[in-house]
Amino acid sequence: MLTYNLTNTGSDSLYEYLYKCIRNDILAGNIGAGEKLPSKRAFAKNLGISVITTQSAYEQLVAEGYIYSIPKSGYYVCDIGEGMSVTKGQKTGKSPKSQNDILAEKQEFLADFSSNQTEREMFPFTIWSKTIREVLSDSQMELMMNSPCGGTMELRSAITSYLKEFRNMDVSAHQVIVGAGTEYLYGLLIQLLGNSLCYGVENPGYSKIANICKSHGVSYQYVGIDRQGVLVPELERKNVNVVHTSPAHHFPTGIVMPVSRRYELLSWATKEEKRYIIEDDYDSELRLTGKMIPTLQSIDVSEKVIYMNTFTKTLSSTVRISYMVLPLHLADQFYKKLSFYSCTVSNFEQYTLARFMANGSYEKHLNRLRNYYQKKHDFIVKKFDTSEMKSYFTIHEQDAGVHFLLEVHTKNPEEFQRQCLARRIRLAPLRRYYHGDEIENNIFVMNYTAMGQEQMEQALKIMTDVIKNKIPVF
Amino acid sequence: MLTYNLTNTGSDSLYEYLYKCIRNDILAGNIGAGEKLPSKRAFAKNLGISVITTQSAYEQLVAEGYIYSIPKSGYYVCDIGEGMSVTKGQKTGKSPKSQNDILAEKQEFLADFSSNQTEREMFPFTIWSKTIREVLSDSQMELMMNSPCGGTMELRSAITSYLKEFRNMDVSAHQVIVGAGTEYLYGLLIQLLGNSLCYGVENPGYSKIANICKSHGVSYQYVGIDRQGVLVPELERKNVNVVHTSPAHHFPTGIVMPVSRRYELLSWATKEEKRYIIEDDYDSELRLTGKMIPTLQSIDVSEKVIYMNTFTKTLSSTVRISYMVLPLHLADQFYKKLSFYSCTVSNFEQYTLARFMANGSYEKHLNRLRNYYQKKHDFIVKKFDTSEMKSYFTIHEQDAGVHFLLEVHTKNPEEFQRQCLARRIRLAPLRRYYHGDEIENNIFVMNYTAMGQEQMEQALKIMTDVIKNKIPVF
Repeated sequence: MLTYNLTNTGSDSLYEYLYKCIRNDILAGNIGAGEKLPSKRAFAKNLGISVITTQSAYEQLVAEGYIYSIPKSGYYVCDIGEGMSVTKGQKTGKSPKSQNDILAEKQEFLADFSSNQTEREMFPFTIWSKTIREVLSDSQMELMMNSPCGGTMELRSAITSYLKEFRNMDVSAHQVIVGAGTEYLYGLLIQLLGNSLCYGVENPGYSKIANICKSHGVSYQYVGIDRQGVLVPELERKNVNVVHTSPAHHFPTGIVMPVSRRYELLSWATKEEKRYIIEDDYDSELRLTGKMIPTLQSIDVSEKVIYMNTFTKTLSSTVRISYMVLPLHLADQFYKKLSFYSCTVSNFEQYTLARFMANGSYEKHLNRLRNYYQKKHDFIVKKFDTSEMKSYFTIHEQDAGVHFLLEVHTKNPEEFQRQCLARRIRLAPLRRYYHGDEIENNIFVMNYTAMGQEQMEQALKIMTDVIKNKIPVF
Repeated sequence: MLTYNLTNTGSDSLYEYLYKCIRNDILAGNIGAGEKLPSKRAFAKNLGISVITTQSAYEQLVAEGYIYSIPKSGYYVCDIGEGMSVTKGQKTGKSPKSQNDILAEKQEFLADFSSNQTEREMFPFTIWSKTIREVLSDSQMELMMNSPCGGTMELRSAITSYLKEFRNMDVSAHQVIVGAGTEYLYGLLIQLLGNSLCYGVENPGYSKIANICKSHGVSYQYVGIDRQGVLVPELERKNVNVVHTSPAHHFPTGIVMPVSRRYELLSWATKEEKRYIIEDDYDSELRLTGKMIPTLQSIDVSEKVIYMNTFTKTLSSTVRISYMVLPLHLADQFYKKLSFYSCTVSNFEQYTLARFMANGSYEKHLNRLRNYYQKKHDFIVKKFDTSEMKSYFTIHEQDAGVHFLLEVHTKNPEEFQRQCLARRIRLAPLRRYYHGDEIENNIFVMNYTAMGQEQMEQALKIMTDVIKNKIPVF
């Protein structure tokens, strides 16, 4: 159990001192997000103080958004940290919480703009269930045959047809490697390309890339971006070999890389043999407005682009199917070097998805999804578009995909974030995706995919109340 | 297309020379297993020789088991290589073969004793389908909630209950990490334990371990075994930190590690901080005879054993679900270091399996499976137990699990293997699992799980015919 020395509280009252001890431990990461605090009673007994004192300290922490309470369960630490923090329910625990507890905790948020979770209502349960049933009855033999390491031909063919039709990409099934999520495929790529290369991680960017490099023990460099995307001279200067980028919709800034920068990037890659571009097209299917820009892969004539995409954004974050398209010479190396690996996606899901794509259900689903997100997008953008709201908030990069940046006009964005959290609204500051601290703190990445209109409306009202009443405006 | 210079055939006839050229390319691995050879006609035209000549060369190669023909399709290279060879249909090809072609090829074998594929008839399709339907209708909300990185609590709890009941292991769900196959979990372990450790790979053993180490760029050493299992002094001598072993049923020799060696191994591990044992319990569920020996994990009091197991053996090799049980201090490190990874098994399969285990279906399935394999085992062992058969074949290590070693009394085991292959019986020589060449060649690893009785009977008859008529006996 947490223990603090309360013999010297200075000028603070006992409860203030205790509140500061816990707060500092949360800020320092000594107590992780989702961790349960001791019960008021047990804590008081352990520290030799009154229950009223622990209660007051906890109430202060709740009010400031450091912890939250679940009735009949206890007090839990909020996720306020930078970068990757430990997921709720995973850190503590010789006796882990039941999934129901975890569900209860997650539902505690009125609105969670930091979540990349897909919306339950949008998963095509009926047609997906029907497809599973068909596969289970029609394809028993295929279901029991080991999948080739790159995935079943059925799924890979469905993917190549899809890429041809919707991304105008001419690739063969041979080049497509299916795997259980993009993170897994990055691990495979590191094994394929080798430990000696230097990986370029966009800053700001998808922070897991750096984590994956680190845990594989390969070197990586942060590379800055400007309004057109990744800075090519910096790639040169930092001796990067392999750069990860999302030209269609940069994460998290939402920047769409113009064609000139794309060619500059391709030109960089062709200058040396061991240079590659990983094009992460993670949400191109959900692009709501504007013309589709051709993928880097489709304008690459030098086998320099590794294209990646995923079904976790369009189907469900809980269906773990992603794929990459390797240039031909890398595909050959893959089969030579890594074909000993079994495909990580089970046949049951591979055949279900292949059928779902081949019979047109995926296309219908995408259309439905785009319409749905478009409505949501228009709704939330319109909400921010009143003269009152404009004095507090500015939306940036709202044109592509299903998240946008929100600038909050406040001098104390951390306090704003905490106050929102205390009211069960979770926000993800943009600086979380930055390495170093060169960025203003008052921009938040707003992911609204998992949120209903009513929820958004309530959340916006609360955010406005917070900024109107509590937070000093610039 | 293949091209050879046929201007100087020496004393060979043209067809003999061509046959040798192709054979040498197959043996050298220049033409991979499953690769399609040019059609007789096109090949003849390309080389400027007669169709009869190419046909004769191909016929010779078929007779010797280097290639096989599929009617109306063409000639394909057999899998005769050592160790890991390229999977059929994956190497060649800007225009990959359809899955149907691949199916047709695989069915070409009358009996494939080298396959670890599970038998289609034994997959519990009816109850599995029912369970999926229940999950799809009852658990839509849970299906859409991101799984914790180690797996859903439902599945992890089902696994801990199973381990308690059947392996007498006391572990918490917190220690269980679910992943898409054992190979994937090894990759995670390497990331968890670090690149600087030396991994011990049993020789003979599960050859993928060395492949995984190699492709992760970590150092590894082969460690010999004797009749009791891995040689502990060799671990010391070679400065191994982490050793992979299967005490319950060594792969491929079938050795069961006695308790004395288990304690010797544990004692080795406790001598230094950075020493661990990976206990791969891959087929303990299928142990057919004899008493279960306690797992290393359950007699380990020093947090030195990482326990691994899989559902790919008992459900289907095409369902990619495995798990590991980490010692508490490693579980803590895992959550700290690697919890940014999403779980690689989709929620749909996690919840289906959890329910399948919790409602007793898995236990029933295992009982059914054991009975079934027991019958098969008894059948094949009995077949080999006649005085005629005994003069040609000796079975070793038949007590545990679902494969055994077959010693063939012949001076020319390669020829025996080739003659069998020409008759569509695929055998896996034990030396394939050895690093180096210190082993006699006349022992084969016989995996019979995917085979029916009739098939086994036919195969044995052909193997006996081959050895009686063609191969010199010792």
